[in-house]
Amino acid sequence: MKRKPVINIRMFNTIVSVAALLALGAGSTTAQAARDPLPSWNDGPAKHAIVDFVRATTDKGSPKFVPAAERIATFDNDGTLWCEQPMYSQFLFALDRVKALAPQHPEWKDKEPFASLLKGDLKEALAGGDRAMLEIVMATHAGMTTEEFEQIVKNWVATARHPKLKRPYTECVYQPMLEVLAYLRANGFKTFIVSGGGIEFMRPWTEKVYGIPPEQVVGSSMKTQYEMRDGKPVLLRLPEVDFIDDKASKPVGINEHIGRRPVAAFGNSDGDQQMLEYAQGGAGARLMMLVHHDDALREFAYGAESKIGTFSDALMAEANKSGWTVISMKSDWKHIFPSRE
Amino acid sequence: MKRKPVINIRMFNTIVSVAALLALGAGSTTAQAARDPLPSWNDGPAKHAIVDFVRATTDKGSPKFVPAAERIATFDNDGTLWCEQPMYSQFLFALDRVKALAPQHPEWKDKEPFASLLKGDLKEALAGGDRAMLEIVMATHAGMTTEEFEQIVKNWVATARHPKLKRPYTECVYQPMLEVLAYLRANGFKTFIVSGGGIEFMRPWTEKVYGIPPEQVVGSSMKTQYEMRDGKPVLLRLPEVDFIDDKASKPVGINEHIGRRPVAAFGNSDGDQQMLEYAQGGAGARLMMLVHHDDALREFAYGAESKIGTFSDALMAEANKSGWTVISMKSDWKHIFPSRE
Repeated sequence: MKRKPVINIRMFNTIVSVAALLALGAGSTTAQAARDPLPSWNDGPAKHAIVDFVRATTDKGSPKFVPAAERIATFDNDGTLWCEQPMYSQFLFALDRVKALAPQHPEWKDKEPFASLLKGDLKEALAGGDRAMLEIVMATHAGMTTEEFEQIVKNWVATARHPKLKRPYTECVYQPMLEVLAYLRANGFKTFIVSGGGIEFMRPWTEKVYGIPPEQVVGSSMKTQYEMRDGKPVLLRLPEVDFIDDKASKPVGINEHIGRRPVAAFGNSDGDQQMLEYAQGGAGARLMMLVHHDDALREFAYGAESKIGTFSDALMAEANKSGWTVISMKSDWKHIFPSRE
Repeated sequence: MKRKPVINIRMFNTIVSVAALLALGAGSTTAQAARDPLPSWNDGPAKHAIVDFVRATTDKGSPKFVPAAERIATFDNDGTLWCEQPMYSQFLFALDRVKALAPQHPEWKDKEPFASLLKGDLKEALAGGDRAMLEIVMATHAGMTTEEFEQIVKNWVATARHPKLKRPYTECVYQPMLEVLAYLRANGFKTFIVSGGGIEFMRPWTEKVYGIPPEQVVGSSMKTQYEMRDGKPVLLRLPEVDFIDDKASKPVGINEHIGRRPVAAFGNSDGDQQMLEYAQGGAGARLMMLVHHDDALREFAYGAESKIGTFSDALMAEANKSGWTVISMKSDWKHIFPSRE
């Protein structure tokens, strides 16, 4: 025996809310039209490129439709999702760690690059070039378990402030890019970080800040070793580089971690060129974008001459030739950083 | 002006279906009680361990509740999710590739281990030990692009048959474990493969067979190199081992790819011991299980004496000491393989 359907107004309201949620989840045209998914972007070619790409790849009737499982988008971190000037935050982290560890290392007083660092002479400390840099990294990033390092990073991120912007690093992220991440995910894309930065330096905060979980972070890494410590199984961080996730190694890292060619890739420097090439090399719809730091007033302006996040003239020529979209921070972004209210 | 709600019977039916789907998606107690999530499991300690673990970790009121983001479950592949006897399928793949490639390698007629392999003398071919094995792997797994290799694996998987079971390898998977994978995912767990097998040998079919996408597969790997080939960006597979994902390296691979300690881990051999230890080493609810192949009639029976998937007496002692659950294929599983209807 079937019961007659009885619907009261309360049930109806619930049903309508549920339907609205479903519509949002499915990214229906009605729901999308209702509000701008990219409110911090000025109307222009960059915003159009993103919206057109998402529409074309998610509309089942479109010749450029991409099945949900293949909707992989990769993002560089430094200079693409957050501020990288005047210095990589991870380098500032290393300097702070040298200071914190100095009492346990009396020998550093007479040993470069530490002696100069502790005197505050960064230029002299880095006179040793790559070797000096490597010594600083090894002294500050190895010799502890992965879980101890995670806690050290969490503590640092919670207290450190950007030297110029005077706010936590996790608030030096680009609001327009947070919107792109959320917009892509709302349309079934899986978002990954693919950065030259340390994978374990990013994982402790990427989920909270970007909505990107640790398993979707690709980066440079140290070798680790499994061992029992006081009867507890841990991974020890060894003073040995495992992988540098930059330039031609970015596609290698993408393949190792993701196993699919991205359909969208975002970067901001010469280190991202191969990632964008690799994304473009697949069949079907593709979106390649480069953030150009041309806004000295609201952030920083730098390009071919920069030591960090170099955007060379050759990269600009490549972008023009290959049809990659260059995002002008100055003209494409209404706001740079999230509102602090 | 508000419009009056009008609901006809067709709309109501749609709404009810949607509500039912939502309830299923959320894994509501009502929906779960309605049907057994593990129908191929006999009632016993192994089935209870799984169900109790899932209930305790997903019930918000439970002291063992685990937030959705931390619900990471890792599975060995050979012998845990699919059949590994009488030989690893990847080794049979390599043998088939040697035969297929022989016409392009006339020099193999006089070169071991290929000469013996081509004569069908497996024992003589493998007399060279690890070195012979490595030569076979390099000759069959390197020298092509990642996308070419993916296609080679897809073709092989589509046509090869298990020598004893006479069915495709992708149908030599364990039905009870397919149910565990689906049950965990329905309860918000993210399922990963962590196997000594080749990462690129598994990825082409794990999504279809297990519902595990490429980015959630961890395995052994070859080094790759980014390059332009006929103007197209590709990754070339080099004849050089990058990572062997076995024993103490499984926690290393888990950390590198996932960046979290699993709360549940499933294996079947000595190669999985460290993965289970590592999972158990975290705080809160944990589930560690080992498949024991004790069913000569329906599959294979092997243990301490085996060369493949060794389940040593030491491992059994460790399981007993540490409270890991040993799954008896013979008594815990109603069915071994998926029905072929």
